[in-house]
Amino acid sequence: MLVMEGASWMNKKVKPYLITRSLQPENQESPIHFIKKWETPLHHFYRRNHFPYPVLNEYSYWLQVTDGQSKKRYIHLSELLSMPATTLTVPLECAGNKREKFSPKVYGEQWEEGAISQGKWTGVPLRDLLKNTELTMEAQEIVFEGADRGLKPGIEGVVPFKRSLPLEKALHRDTLIAYQYNDQPLSIKHGHPFRLIVPNWYAMASVKWLQKIEIIKHKFTGPFQTEDYMYYPNENNNQEKIPVTTLNVNSTIQQPLTYSLLKSGIHKVEGIAWTGQGKITEVQLSFDDGRTWTKANLARSDTSVYSWIHWSLVREFKKGEYIILSRAVDSSGRNQPDTAFWNQKGYGYNAVSKVHVKVE
Amino acid sequence: MLVMEGASWMNKKVKPYLITRSLQPENQESPIHFIKKWETPLHHFYRRNHFPYPVLNEYSYWLQVTDGQSKKRYIHLSELLSMPATTLTVPLECAGNKREKFSPKVYGEQWEEGAISQGKWTGVPLRDLLKNTELTMEAQEIVFEGADRGLKPGIEGVVPFKRSLPLEKALHRDTLIAYQYNDQPLSIKHGHPFRLIVPNWYAMASVKWLQKIEIIKHKFTGPFQTEDYMYYPNENNNQEKIPVTTLNVNSTIQQPLTYSLLKSGIHKVEGIAWTGQGKITEVQLSFDDGRTWTKANLARSDTSVYSWIHWSLVREFKKGEYIILSRAVDSSGRNQPDTAFWNQKGYGYNAVSKVHVKVE
Repeated sequence: MLVMEGASWMNKKVKPYLITRSLQPENQESPIHFIKKWETPLHHFYRRNHFPYPVLNEYSYWLQVTDGQSKKRYIHLSELLSMPATTLTVPLECAGNKREKFSPKVYGEQWEEGAISQGKWTGVPLRDLLKNTELTMEAQEIVFEGADRGLKPGIEGVVPFKRSLPLEKALHRDTLIAYQYNDQPLSIKHGHPFRLIVPNWYAMASVKWLQKIEIIKHKFTGPFQTEDYMYYPNENNNQEKIPVTTLNVNSTIQQPLTYSLLKSGIHKVEGIAWTGQGKITEVQLSFDDGRTWTKANLARSDTSVYSWIHWSLVREFKKGEYIILSRAVDSSGRNQPDTAFWNQKGYGYNAVSKVHVKVE
Repeated sequence: MLVMEGASWMNKKVKPYLITRSLQPENQESPIHFIKKWETPLHHFYRRNHFPYPVLNEYSYWLQVTDGQSKKRYIHLSELLSMPATTLTVPLECAGNKREKFSPKVYGEQWEEGAISQGKWTGVPLRDLLKNTELTMEAQEIVFEGADRGLKPGIEGVVPFKRSLPLEKALHRDTLIAYQYNDQPLSIKHGHPFRLIVPNWYAMASVKWLQKIEIIKHKFTGPFQTEDYMYYPNENNNQEKIPVTTLNVNSTIQQPLTYSLLKSGIHKVEGIAWTGQGKITEVQLSFDDGRTWTKANLARSDTSVYSWIHWSLVREFKKGEYIILSRAVDSSGRNQPDTAFWNQKGYGYNAVSKVHVKVE
């Protein structure tokens, strides 16, 4: 017994895990340096919550659609399931991804590079759901309310997580009411039973545990719309704030890890790159701290225009110390800046990615 | 089906995980900020390997004891199990724990604060095993060889992990050949079936997968004894090196996490402290970056002189930014320095621990 238990082969399996940033609420990042698949397995998908997980009941399976006045409609999950479905591979990135890298330092969850994951979302385009219904000429935004709610400093009472989208984004054919992730029902931690999926935007827009969709004739001003998820560019005042929307062009060096020791010889430098505007056209690598640059090889997903790309370069490393940089360029002409745009809450970090290695 | 699967209550369980530093070999740190128990559960015990996991077979359950010449003895696990056992709560800390904090930066696994775990080890004192046997007056050191082996830059062929202890440390009554952790057989990842446990020393001394014990009449000079696990204090040469042995006096602030946002009000500041020399007598906290200091409350293990202590202080926090420091003092008069002793390989970091928080 003593012998068999300990020596089981199963016990030698080696795998990465989520990296805990907080437990109440649960915030854990993906072990992104070890994720080589197009579709992140559920257990490696990052978790980002503002509040405790909501308690679901039979009503949770009814989605309310309303014009905020007289019209109210309830759609059951089974109705969604009977409608034509769209499946898209979409990365979701927390607006605070890489916050830990800002200088001067910024308070908040100290996300390193793993507040991003992607996979296959299946659902019904929101515009199909709204077809022939509540939309009028005066509609300006659509507000999405999740079942998650809790306390927020400076606000009295319990507040729900609510976000709005401008009409054109809400009605884009790829904005989905998703009910499946990687061919499985959405998990409770990622929005079961319904999650809005908004490709190209930071993931605060992809509201989880969706329970209410409201069409409004004005601009929405909830705390998650106009206080949080705003870029505050000034250190000492809250002026000139700008809403967080589209993903910045970005890349992450997955391997080698920073400050690792390598044996001299051939090594593969690899990573991912993504953007919220067009597609990645190029990833440039430097092995001398930016003096010279080389193009990486790109591998694209066959199936999705939104997917991150995988990039890599195989290279011989002689003894010495190296600073490796990666810089992604997108089809809208954006590239990663040398220094990220600093803002009080630490959103949208996308400076050129950097690792140090020593070859022995 | 769709409904039931996703909504299962089990799926809402929130727990921390190991933090991956490398997968080949496996190096993962404990989520130390969330470990509140005296005995770290096995799945939260940090993993530190030099090589792939060894392949065990029936011979692995025989421990060889030799004087390196004529005498050779083989002891089976069942014989160890029949001897009087000692159980001790002992923390094991990797010499590279907190390496990530050194400035200037140091290459190697970038351990943050979790390359330390503790639990209950059960085994036979080495000195009981050696009683009436191979020891002669000329014996100077005892060498311990693990079953793990692999390649090492600069050395030809496959090398085993081997470490020695001076006779007095090897024969201390608390130096154990352990075969159980937290009342369970040692797991394959932590040395099954035998692991040396050397209280008070950094954990490279606690050799896993122990298969051979050799009594020698000279000083041992293997690469893990005289190249690695040495403090090299000079940045540009390898002179004046000092072996890594006893644990430094140290502490870690578990909560709050650095750069976290707190609501104004009462919060508990808590952590652990440990030493390899005597016991922890005091933990001092500062909330103003070291200008003034307050004593923390200490909780000691009833059962072990080696155990880390838990410390805490409940305090009201008003709005503002704070730099919280913790500094442990031990009974040998050592305390944590303001700046750690820098060394090329980044061992033994124990500067005063620091977190930044903002209270809203």
